[in-house]
Amino acid sequence: MSPKNAFYAQSGGVTAVINASACGVIETARQHPDRIGKVLAGRNGIIGALTEDLIDTSLETPADIAALRHTPSGAFGSCRYKLKSLEQNRAEYERLIEVFRAHDIGYFFYNGGGDSADTCLKVSQLAATLGYPIQAIHVPKTVDNDLPFTDVCPGFGSVAKYVAVSMREASFDVASMAKTSTKVFVMEVMGRHAGWIAAAGGLASDAECPLPIVILFPELVFEPAPFLARVAELVETHGYCSIVVSEGVKDASGQFLADQGLKDAFGHAQLGGVAPVIANLLRQELKLKYHWAVADYLQRAARHIASKTDVEQAYALGRAAVELALAGHNAVMPTIVRQSDEPYVWTLGEAPLAEVANRERKMPREFISEDGFGISEAGRRYLQPLIQGEDYPPYHNGLPQYVRLQNRAVPRLTTSSFALK
Amino acid sequence: MSPKNAFYAQSGGVTAVINASACGVIETARQHPDRIGKVLAGRNGIIGALTEDLIDTSLETPADIAALRHTPSGAFGSCRYKLKSLEQNRAEYERLIEVFRAHDIGYFFYNGGGDSADTCLKVSQLAATLGYPIQAIHVPKTVDNDLPFTDVCPGFGSVAKYVAVSMREASFDVASMAKTSTKVFVMEVMGRHAGWIAAAGGLASDAECPLPIVILFPELVFEPAPFLARVAELVETHGYCSIVVSEGVKDASGQFLADQGLKDAFGHAQLGGVAPVIANLLRQELKLKYHWAVADYLQRAARHIASKTDVEQAYALGRAAVELALAGHNAVMPTIVRQSDEPYVWTLGEAPLAEVANRERKMPREFISEDGFGISEAGRRYLQPLIQGEDYPPYHNGLPQYVRLQNRAVPRLTTSSFALK
Repeated sequence: MSPKNAFYAQSGGVTAVINASACGVIETARQHPDRIGKVLAGRNGIIGALTEDLIDTSLETPADIAALRHTPSGAFGSCRYKLKSLEQNRAEYERLIEVFRAHDIGYFFYNGGGDSADTCLKVSQLAATLGYPIQAIHVPKTVDNDLPFTDVCPGFGSVAKYVAVSMREASFDVASMAKTSTKVFVMEVMGRHAGWIAAAGGLASDAECPLPIVILFPELVFEPAPFLARVAELVETHGYCSIVVSEGVKDASGQFLADQGLKDAFGHAQLGGVAPVIANLLRQELKLKYHWAVADYLQRAARHIASKTDVEQAYALGRAAVELALAGHNAVMPTIVRQSDEPYVWTLGEAPLAEVANRERKMPREFISEDGFGISEAGRRYLQPLIQGEDYPPYHNGLPQYVRLQNRAVPRLTTSSFALK
Repeated sequence: MSPKNAFYAQSGGVTAVINASACGVIETARQHPDRIGKVLAGRNGIIGALTEDLIDTSLETPADIAALRHTPSGAFGSCRYKLKSLEQNRAEYERLIEVFRAHDIGYFFYNGGGDSADTCLKVSQLAATLGYPIQAIHVPKTVDNDLPFTDVCPGFGSVAKYVAVSMREASFDVASMAKTSTKVFVMEVMGRHAGWIAAAGGLASDAECPLPIVILFPELVFEPAPFLARVAELVETHGYCSIVVSEGVKDASGQFLADQGLKDAFGHAQLGGVAPVIANLLRQELKLKYHWAVADYLQRAARHIASKTDVEQAYALGRAAVELALAGHNAVMPTIVRQSDEPYVWTLGEAPLAEVANRERKMPREFISEDGFGISEAGRRYLQPLIQGEDYPPYHNGLPQYVRLQNRAVPRLTTSSFALK
């Protein structure tokens, strides 16, 4: 049996370490030329398969593939595009098979979050549903950390480290200024549905370096009165405080605080952040001088301060995906299994995609402190290991040397084109 | 002659490396016990002198003082407090002399920006004006990079590196997402009066790694039409672009773009950033999907990604300040003198405070590209050396180990108190 080619694609929001998973997939596949031919990457995710826009990764040098490990973002382009069900859009699946058959694809590696796990599951069923034999393995990735079964999702640990480090640094800054100037610093972080990222701000403060930090979680309804009381108390005691607020925080009516109906001078709705809303509240109610920041993409792209643990896990899961495929598995996702908290020991496991897809992992309430404004000891035990270790990229001229691949296209073999819906 | 004590204080907005200057001052002073007694630090800057709230740095261990070199923020607290002129508030100067005399202060080291240089100058004249002999040396510090005579102000190089690295990382991120999602990323940076920091965003793109970046400088009036045309052109060509905008950008009427009259749901004025204003404009006029970030304190506190060049210069200027004092100088500021661009070779010089104080260094127009949206080759030649080298702090448990000193108070010796105006 001649070796089949593999398809690899990146999906959804990118991270500081999704390319480390790509590196794990490609380097491992290259070690098995008897079983796997070329790794063909989808340009801009699954769209690359549907439009037959494939990248021949075999043309990239080993050094460039190795450099993916320290390069943030999605090297082949990502996309936000969810396959419909077979019943709703059979043409999409038939098109995938047309392209896969033309390029002799026998392995499908999909690197993404919950929606992508669902897509991957559907592809894994193509043998049964449409008679095309393929093994589909999902490589987990999401800063939202909301995939079930795995101890953590690659990408999250590095965002967590960025947020923890930034909160510590900004807190030191505010502490210096508080006597005559800024007394509160507010930082907005990602996490529309879950407070995993906001929780990481709590790590900035620990026994060795206690800092007055308030966390606003999307899991809890925002109540101004207790929040203001907590801030006032910390400023009274410490002279300052720092606040990390999740973009997903809602008020009692269920409305995002970020959507407070801001209007610009022309009456246009302004898509605001939640940080300025919180800052404004502090100014009005407590008359405190403040500064605010919105980290946005900086937090998930910050490969320069990536967690070494995260990088290693991302790579290991990419490698494991290929090894699972070689072992004959289908419709699974390799996972991180926590064996112990301290020292953090983890091994690899696997989970069936049928149980992963469309199932969201929520942050347990017991990870939040009783008063709702911090992390509990259980939360700290979970989070602390994930930010361990530094894994600096190489620098040239003062800037990180991130690789940009050639991304040369595979010649098209199908004659038909496909219009994306 | 028994050795006189030294007074050291930090002033204005803190930086990632002002403590490296403190480290340079204290370590150098400790090497000259025959000439300098103790270094007494002002708690919260000059306020500590006026209120006789002094910190005895001699009680700190050598290891803790050494750790200042890798700790951001102001270890002794800073303040925004400008001494009035001798004519306007003679009582302040008389109080300073009272405290200095009580604590046998013969040296005054003031670590700050333009306003602080003015204060330092006034103190240097106390011998002449009020008959108290003291040598006052200013240690330059400001992320605004607006002090004259010195090639660069400590603090700026590290902010520049943070901005350049962040813009490169975020640009990689947007490039990955652009096919189906975000096409423009906007990052707001500091610099109300000058575009030095915004200019650093241009370093993210270079010959090895060209990136479509647009810079909005406060030096130039913001004109929507050419800006939108430039963004549209880059998005057309590259599929995406990144924008770095200075908080100080103004429109043709001279109004800050950040003060565009945003109102919240209750009709209260909202202190906005300029990034959301630019993002909103892009959405309305070009229908582009965007993300925006406001770096705020994160940029100046980011010791984790400090420029090694900046750290070395900050330390060297602290050391030089003490050496100048020991050599009998007064009313001067040590400076960085650029000898060559590439390799970057710098030496130390000095400038008379009478010429430094209240004189702002502006960014030359020739550092901006002709079209006004980027840096010129001259700008790059100036900026590039300043971000060279990495100087990582030590980490423990995944977080940088920043020192917090004991900051034990010197017993008060004056019986009067002083009310700050």
